[in-house]
Amino acid sequence: MTKQDLIECHDRIKPFIHNTPVLTSRLINDMTGTHFFFKCENFQRMGAFKMRGAANAIMQLSEEQKRNGVVTHSSGNFAQALSLAAQGLGVKAYIVMPNTAPQVKKDAVRGYGGFVIECEPTLEARERESKQIEEKYGATFIHPSNDDQVILGQGTACMELLEAYPDLDFVVTPVGGGGLIAGTALAAHYFGKQCKTIGGEPLEVDDAYRSLLSGKIETNETTNTIADGLKTQLGDRNFPIIQQHVGEIIRVKEAEIVTAMRILWERLKIVCEPSSAVAFAAVLNQKEKFKGKKTGIIISGGNVDLAHLPF
Amino acid sequence: MTKQDLIECHDRIKPFIHNTPVLTSRLINDMTGTHFFFKCENFQRMGAFKMRGAANAIMQLSEEQKRNGVVTHSSGNFAQALSLAAQGLGVKAYIVMPNTAPQVKKDAVRGYGGFVIECEPTLEARERESKQIEEKYGATFIHPSNDDQVILGQGTACMELLEAYPDLDFVVTPVGGGGLIAGTALAAHYFGKQCKTIGGEPLEVDDAYRSLLSGKIETNETTNTIADGLKTQLGDRNFPIIQQHVGEIIRVKEAEIVTAMRILWERLKIVCEPSSAVAFAAVLNQKEKFKGKKTGIIISGGNVDLAHLPF
Repeated sequence: MTKQDLIECHDRIKPFIHNTPVLTSRLINDMTGTHFFFKCENFQRMGAFKMRGAANAIMQLSEEQKRNGVVTHSSGNFAQALSLAAQGLGVKAYIVMPNTAPQVKKDAVRGYGGFVIECEPTLEARERESKQIEEKYGATFIHPSNDDQVILGQGTACMELLEAYPDLDFVVTPVGGGGLIAGTALAAHYFGKQCKTIGGEPLEVDDAYRSLLSGKIETNETTNTIADGLKTQLGDRNFPIIQQHVGEIIRVKEAEIVTAMRILWERLKIVCEPSSAVAFAAVLNQKEKFKGKKTGIIISGGNVDLAHLPF
Repeated sequence: MTKQDLIECHDRIKPFIHNTPVLTSRLINDMTGTHFFFKCENFQRMGAFKMRGAANAIMQLSEEQKRNGVVTHSSGNFAQALSLAAQGLGVKAYIVMPNTAPQVKKDAVRGYGGFVIECEPTLEARERESKQIEEKYGATFIHPSNDDQVILGQGTACMELLEAYPDLDFVVTPVGGGGLIAGTALAAHYFGKQCKTIGGEPLEVDDAYRSLLSGKIETNETTNTIADGLKTQLGDRNFPIIQQHVGEIIRVKEAEIVTAMRILWERLKIVCEPSSAVAFAAVLNQKEKFKGKKTGIIISGGNVDLAHLPF
């Protein structure tokens, strides 16, 4: 994927996304000795960066493909992103969700015009159901993170951040399925001046950390983390990009995630997900490395249940 | 106070404040039929619009006055604002606080370099203590809301909002001591095109509503509201401006404030105070009036205790 691919992607999706604000806080800077720039994708449409990749992936389909709709399996932000992006583009979105998914998530997908198909809560059942929809309707499957067009779309958040602040030393993102960090790493490579991409990952689901060490895609045996957007694993499209362009993945404990999240809520005054706090927690974990450095943080999303906060 | 006063005030305080972002949400617009523009003063330095007025008031002092410091009595955002503004300007700030004020508020003031003086939790004790500091140190008393320079400073948030969105039909603010709404009304008058200023006020502390009706400054017998920034009453400097330039004050119930606050947190993804939600609640209370209208909302501040949320 080239610099030009990113530029064209950004131009293409601009009408469907917000160029989200970048917040700064002297208090947080003073607290850490790092100069932070928080790219607030929690203010993105539907509340997360996933809107970018979803819009781009649908826009790159042929007219015939668009007529037949798109399908994905997700109970998280990508389900809502694909639904909303599809709605804006006049495309039908089939969303396969486990029947155990919270009602509020199903309602959110339907609210954005997505068509919810429920299945048993296993990966096998989800994939089988998706396959059936592909066959039945001719719908195109869009993977939430392991898809070149999705990766490019996710990279546009970092492009915008570097447009505003071209001389960042670091950009830090959470690592889940790998779409965001891969896109970010491409954008930092093409548009930064020596801007290094760093990942933050919960210690409890450190598959990406272990994958970089072993040189092959590792999985998680358990996924016991509050950062529920990061339980997924890397894929064959994004892993090579991560291997090539990501300097390091920093692992953080659950308590560090909650502390970081609380600082972001209290000091930056934003509602963000635990996943978003993972990137910030990674910097707090390695304060010396980032001391005096201009550090961008991608605040990935803001979809939380206010009735179940960890503080 | 003239248009030129506001322009000069804004130029003066610019180095000490953020031009805070304006957020929009199609979801909230669709929900209400109103086109909202949320001016996010919760992202202001120290977390509230009060920074603007505090900075302006101190900057307008003579060099001799600056040398002798400033004093106020407040346990809320103005205590922090005056401390932080004074710190940035090399001026000493004496903050008289009731000895019952939460430790976290005293710590915040001290964190911003303010000098805390504790007193009995009565208005009489506060005023006596302030007076003593004025006499002892030659410090200048700065009122949190009933001061022309403070009023001008608070008006700059609306100036920035109208710079970005010149054709607003309404701008809505919460009403507490009257500094914010008076400054906003002046800015809307001078810089808007037919932009009407509306106030939102808790029914439980509807002194401003009653003052507009009676033509004289009314007080509250009880102050039983979650919007603890709005328990104060109008003053002789801001009341005439409010009488002249504010179209209406809409009163809202406590449950409406909590509902509005929840929508802002969940949909706009911001951490804001109950006081901030009062302005938005006022629009929700009178949906027909604002239908199809471009409506600015001043989100006044974001200083909340995450351990004591109303939801």
